[in-house]
Amino acid sequence: MAKPKRSETGISPTRSENYAEWYQQVVRAADLAENSVVRGCMVIKPWGYAIWENMQRVLDGMFKATGHRNAYFPLFIPKNLLEKEAAHVEGFAKECAIVTHHRLIAGPDGGLIPDPDAKLEEPLIVRPTSETIIGASFAQWVHSYRDLPLLINQWANVVRWELRTRLFLRTAEFLWQEGHTAHSSSAEAMEETERMLGVYETFAQNTLAIPVIKGRKTELERFPGAVETYCIEGMMQDRKALQAGTSHFLGQNFAKAAEIKFQSQQETEEYAWTTSWGVSTRLIGALIMTHSDDDGLVLPPCIAPAQVVILPILRDDDTRPKVLAYAEELRRELSALRFGDRAVEVELDARDLRGGEKNWGWIKRGVPLRVEVGPRDVEASAVTYARRDEPAREKHSAGRAQFVAELPALLATMQRSLFDRAVAFRAEHTHPVDGWKDFEAFFTPKNAEQPEIHGGFAMSHWCGAAACEERIREHKITIRCIPLDVPKEQGQCVVCGQPSANRVLCAKSY
Amino acid sequence: MAKPKRSETGISPTRSENYAEWYQQVVRAADLAENSVVRGCMVIKPWGYAIWENMQRVLDGMFKATGHRNAYFPLFIPKNLLEKEAAHVEGFAKECAIVTHHRLIAGPDGGLIPDPDAKLEEPLIVRPTSETIIGASFAQWVHSYRDLPLLINQWANVVRWELRTRLFLRTAEFLWQEGHTAHSSSAEAMEETERMLGVYETFAQNTLAIPVIKGRKTELERFPGAVETYCIEGMMQDRKALQAGTSHFLGQNFAKAAEIKFQSQQETEEYAWTTSWGVSTRLIGALIMTHSDDDGLVLPPCIAPAQVVILPILRDDDTRPKVLAYAEELRRELSALRFGDRAVEVELDARDLRGGEKNWGWIKRGVPLRVEVGPRDVEASAVTYARRDEPAREKHSAGRAQFVAELPALLATMQRSLFDRAVAFRAEHTHPVDGWKDFEAFFTPKNAEQPEIHGGFAMSHWCGAAACEERIREHKITIRCIPLDVPKEQGQCVVCGQPSANRVLCAKSY
Repeated sequence: MAKPKRSETGISPTRSENYAEWYQQVVRAADLAENSVVRGCMVIKPWGYAIWENMQRVLDGMFKATGHRNAYFPLFIPKNLLEKEAAHVEGFAKECAIVTHHRLIAGPDGGLIPDPDAKLEEPLIVRPTSETIIGASFAQWVHSYRDLPLLINQWANVVRWELRTRLFLRTAEFLWQEGHTAHSSSAEAMEETERMLGVYETFAQNTLAIPVIKGRKTELERFPGAVETYCIEGMMQDRKALQAGTSHFLGQNFAKAAEIKFQSQQETEEYAWTTSWGVSTRLIGALIMTHSDDDGLVLPPCIAPAQVVILPILRDDDTRPKVLAYAEELRRELSALRFGDRAVEVELDARDLRGGEKNWGWIKRGVPLRVEVGPRDVEASAVTYARRDEPAREKHSAGRAQFVAELPALLATMQRSLFDRAVAFRAEHTHPVDGWKDFEAFFTPKNAEQPEIHGGFAMSHWCGAAACEERIREHKITIRCIPLDVPKEQGQCVVCGQPSANRVLCAKSY
Repeated sequence: MAKPKRSETGISPTRSENYAEWYQQVVRAADLAENSVVRGCMVIKPWGYAIWENMQRVLDGMFKATGHRNAYFPLFIPKNLLEKEAAHVEGFAKECAIVTHHRLIAGPDGGLIPDPDAKLEEPLIVRPTSETIIGASFAQWVHSYRDLPLLINQWANVVRWELRTRLFLRTAEFLWQEGHTAHSSSAEAMEETERMLGVYETFAQNTLAIPVIKGRKTELERFPGAVETYCIEGMMQDRKALQAGTSHFLGQNFAKAAEIKFQSQQETEEYAWTTSWGVSTRLIGALIMTHSDDDGLVLPPCIAPAQVVILPILRDDDTRPKVLAYAEELRRELSALRFGDRAVEVELDARDLRGGEKNWGWIKRGVPLRVEVGPRDVEASAVTYARRDEPAREKHSAGRAQFVAELPALLATMQRSLFDRAVAFRAEHTHPVDGWKDFEAFFTPKNAEQPEIHGGFAMSHWCGAAACEERIREHKITIRCIPLDVPKEQGQCVVCGQPSANRVLCAKSY
């Protein structure tokens, strides 16, 4: 059999040919999302949205297990609320969608125009994040230490006017969750900040199979208005970093701006200590770029909309009913199994299409297991299956009963193997780098045709000076974080040579 | 024991004293929602949002069981898309939020102003509904009859600029789901329209315990651009109607505007036939006004965020640990039970508050069962419980094992009893009304101090003329629908006396 041309099967170009274009093609071939007619806004298609629903279900369970409850706050923020927290304004208020009118009328050319008589007295901002509007509610809700802690989460859409957008990674509108909490002490708020960072780490690693580094942001990289910003950073396959979640300790900054005050047990009036934390549909971008290969999307079983697709081989009318019945029964058996927190999801694809076309369609959609059943499998009470984490043409045979019995274990093995592979990839491209010359060399692509592919994560000493950080930034490299889980080590700043107490994570990033 | 004053216990005013104010007080006392600082936009508080989450879970399951998949489309609609469907523009484009700028800058007085240099070339409308923007995607997705039916649902926020708002019933921003489907034939699209109306009816009756009348809207009451609009209408306790859900057969109107075309099996090019259908957070308003009483919110067990609250009686330090341990074990036992599609949700309220205050707090929040456990219950291995569908002071005793064993059946009984009560109330206030004089009298309040309380639902003959409908509307009464499930009956139009083939449902409404 002639080997099919790549264009008929996997993704074109490959990662090494053109990484950025490969990403777009993975998204397109898996039918995850597309650009809409509205500049910068994406349409999340059913297969992509199902991944988001799975993320929501798992995260929501983790938020509730840690005592949080969901609520919903207005889409619009009055301009005067935004103006209250100075650092926040500076960081956020610039590029956003501004509502100025509340009525359309017929214009002179017959089209619709904003009615000049329906201009808002004060413009409304479409929320880029909700600290200020949620702060206004918290100020009403909190009176006494007995009202604290207040542990709230919101699932919502937010808008940040972006000029250069990429599906999932940077879009004008995106979906996210934003946790907002208020506490009676600094220590408790800091504990919450760290707890939620831990929740994100667990979710990224256990559910998405994305290894992440937990760390603290530098002052320059902090959320506008925060006292400390913590993050989890993952390495994508072009060796760039992607910030996959953030957790902010806001101190009393937002509480002072919004007047969130409470009477303490000592009957004094105090400002509350607040936190906020969020992850977004950007995680889908991280998922794609951590696991996918030159054949398309690869989904870890814990997050896949379907873990198994059954592909009946329907060659002739004689065997067709038997094969279909066998496939249907297999579907029932597999659907009755559980994996993680849910039932195993199974697709049965009985469409009248060529087998190769169907098979490659599911490869590109990233389904963990493809199970073929043909007349011979029916006779032998067997199945032939292929794993998405193995080369596309590698097949396994198994007795049907055994396959069913061992399916949850097989899915767990695949989940683990994707995580291990990503850990190994990150380890391979993470290096201690000392001295400016080596630092520059580390981030210089070896191949001019692949300007994205450089050394990876540089663990380098930094003295803590903003000037040195700015110097690094000039090279389009950022200090992604000051990692939490690395030992202290004396050394010299990679920029200025001054003493440094620990290495920080430097990388190019999304 | 002196009877507590009403103000210390239930809601003030009562329904008969001031129905509109009673509604606001139920919402407030149950901590469901409140007005925000943004005109017309509400904050949905955790207890209210948990009701919405339950609605979402049940409905989403029903949508998926009928073959629909979720997706997400942009918040913003370009003005030119709205302009395409003339009837739709006429009905929807008037009062909406219009985005005209994409940047804020510091103004002359130090505050923020929209940057005049960042004016959008074409204004964007915050979606009041998504037919037009989803139509633009469908036009890209549909090529052949093989791509149909396309069955999509979206959970989203929408904005309609309302001047007079009431929590849940009418707000500028609200949450909803909107189903959008495309089909290859008129018959199939109509079948879908009816199927989803049936899903809404089942949900309203089985989950929310709200009896509803299914019907077809008159031309004047149709969704702008639809060929037919179907609805479910419930009766609130002030005898007004509330439209609880709609399902629209859009014919080819939107397909023609958006160019949703497909190649048929006969290889001709055809416009698709589309539908849309939706329910919103307005359902929470319907839920409140169907079941609540003068003591506050009453929640059917199927939709309650918690079905049981355990109130340990913690009088002295001697018995406290024993009572708490007993309460905790009871909580574990009850939480292990299932009711409907989920585990029984149990709250254990061990706060140091007076028993009466705690008890009344949960009454007002509408929890179906309040279970008191005190030292004597511990000794006797018993519980004392009160049902929210019975008078507040009525109590029952039961052995603990028996109570646990029978809990799901008890909840089912309560669910049924709330439905039956609402059916009986509606029956009591629904009457055939013939002749304009009787019609006017039916809708004239008997008591000037209660201008809301009139006859209820009038089943009256209507000839089908728009002029007669307009006459009815002049009296702030509308033809809510032409009911589907009533027998044909010859009669005379209640307005003009001309022949009529069936009675229609006339009512004042929300």
